[in-house]
Amino acid sequence: MCELLGMSANVPTDICFSFSGLVKRGGDTGVHRDGWGIAFYEGKGYRSFHDPIASVDSEVAKFIQSYSIKSSQVICHIRKANRGRVSLENTHPFSRELWGQVWSFAHNGQLKGIKKKQLLNYLPVGSTDSEHAFCWVLGRLRDEFPVKPKSKVALRRCIQRLFRELAQLGVFNVLMSDAQSLYTYCSTKLSWLTRQAPFDSARLLDADVSIDFKQETSSNDVVTVIATEPLTSNEQWTQMVVGEFSQFRLGRKEFTQLS
Amino acid sequence: MCELLGMSANVPTDICFSFSGLVKRGGDTGVHRDGWGIAFYEGKGYRSFHDPIASVDSEVAKFIQSYSIKSSQVICHIRKANRGRVSLENTHPFSRELWGQVWSFAHNGQLKGIKKKQLLNYLPVGSTDSEHAFCWVLGRLRDEFPVKPKSKVALRRCIQRLFRELAQLGVFNVLMSDAQSLYTYCSTKLSWLTRQAPFDSARLLDADVSIDFKQETSSNDVVTVIATEPLTSNEQWTQMVVGEFSQFRLGRKEFTQLS
Repeated sequence: MCELLGMSANVPTDICFSFSGLVKRGGDTGVHRDGWGIAFYEGKGYRSFHDPIASVDSEVAKFIQSYSIKSSQVICHIRKANRGRVSLENTHPFSRELWGQVWSFAHNGQLKGIKKKQLLNYLPVGSTDSEHAFCWVLGRLRDEFPVKPKSKVALRRCIQRLFRELAQLGVFNVLMSDAQSLYTYCSTKLSWLTRQAPFDSARLLDADVSIDFKQETSSNDVVTVIATEPLTSNEQWTQMVVGEFSQFRLGRKEFTQLS
Repeated sequence: MCELLGMSANVPTDICFSFSGLVKRGGDTGVHRDGWGIAFYEGKGYRSFHDPIASVDSEVAKFIQSYSIKSSQVICHIRKANRGRVSLENTHPFSRELWGQVWSFAHNGQLKGIKKKQLLNYLPVGSTDSEHAFCWVLGRLRDEFPVKPKSKVALRRCIQRLFRELAQLGVFNVLMSDAQSLYTYCSTKLSWLTRQAPFDSARLLDADVSIDFKQETSSNDVVTVIATEPLTSNEQWTQMVVGEFSQFRLGRKEFTQLS
């Protein structure tokens, strides 16, 4: 098992608070000691930070907690290795360019037989099931749409179909983004909440840390956080149901359907 | 003009010393205030740090200087924007996957008419000449070799031919790596030096900092540093000649030829 964290926001927002809670699960309150990574979208721009060691011991993770990167979308992952050794190239999120956009992907679970699926165009650098699955998804998307489709619905339907196919191979909890949308699939466990006005305070489950979002936000901000397990103790998280595919955009859940 | 810094080493080596000198040129001793980036190879793994602000003001750059990442190859770039606005997506080094390896690219110069060159497979995310040139190179490599060529010589010859073609469009000082080799082309300005036993001390030109490499190395270490301008005052840098294409591997210059 690994743990996932995602964010979609309508204004550049920092994820320090939620990240501080997740980091604790990487070797302190949780057992995910085999590396971690976080990816930030800033407009079309993308930057990611990876470290193949426990997040609680990681200097890079400490830096990220202290340095407020404001981002419209974030994907984060802390790893408990199953397939693929502990190494930088096996550390999520993975990223590739498709149609002039950076796509990123973080996955929790194992996919039996995934490596028999033929890859088109994209090849894994590391040896995880997850990167293979991501390469397969992007290769199939590219095969279906050699240029970026004008129809967002057609794109979403194709992603949903591909995710559903992967979910048949095992456990497939996933976050995938193309800078505009955050696509999720819940195979066993994912929760989410949307924060918007009137803002309140929140308290982390994994650390003795609270934040008063009233001080940090403006009244128009809308921010959704998605995580394997709820990160705060005093907010209403919604657990996704098994087989739920969703699309988040500008902080809101724009689409959801059971597969 | 931008400034480039590269490293090739036969053992994982940190670049903090050289990077500290280069950072000063990003807004202090130099005028390159429009962002900076650095990419590290660790085995097949790749991680990069980018910031679209002056390196002397960058918290990320301060962190990199204090945190010793040991790497076999490094590509670094500080930017003075010519084409393409100041933004994260326009910040070098650029990276893409080809044949299951991460390729990275940093460029100094302008290339007249580069955007008329037809791209295959890879598309830019930002708007710089440099990223367009990189996408063109990788697309042509992939077209020539749909699978990774067994012959390293054939690969090198193809890269040299593509670099020569780009150099005809303007100024093309470049560093490109595929995790195994560091390929360089000098169109106007690049210098290099190889450090090996017996090691000595070195003093930065841009900051009052010295290092005694005897304390930091073992006798088998071989490390080559490549930079737009020499970074140290008391070492013998070799200036590349105009039109020089080189390949560095495991710390040594393995091939060089005038185009």
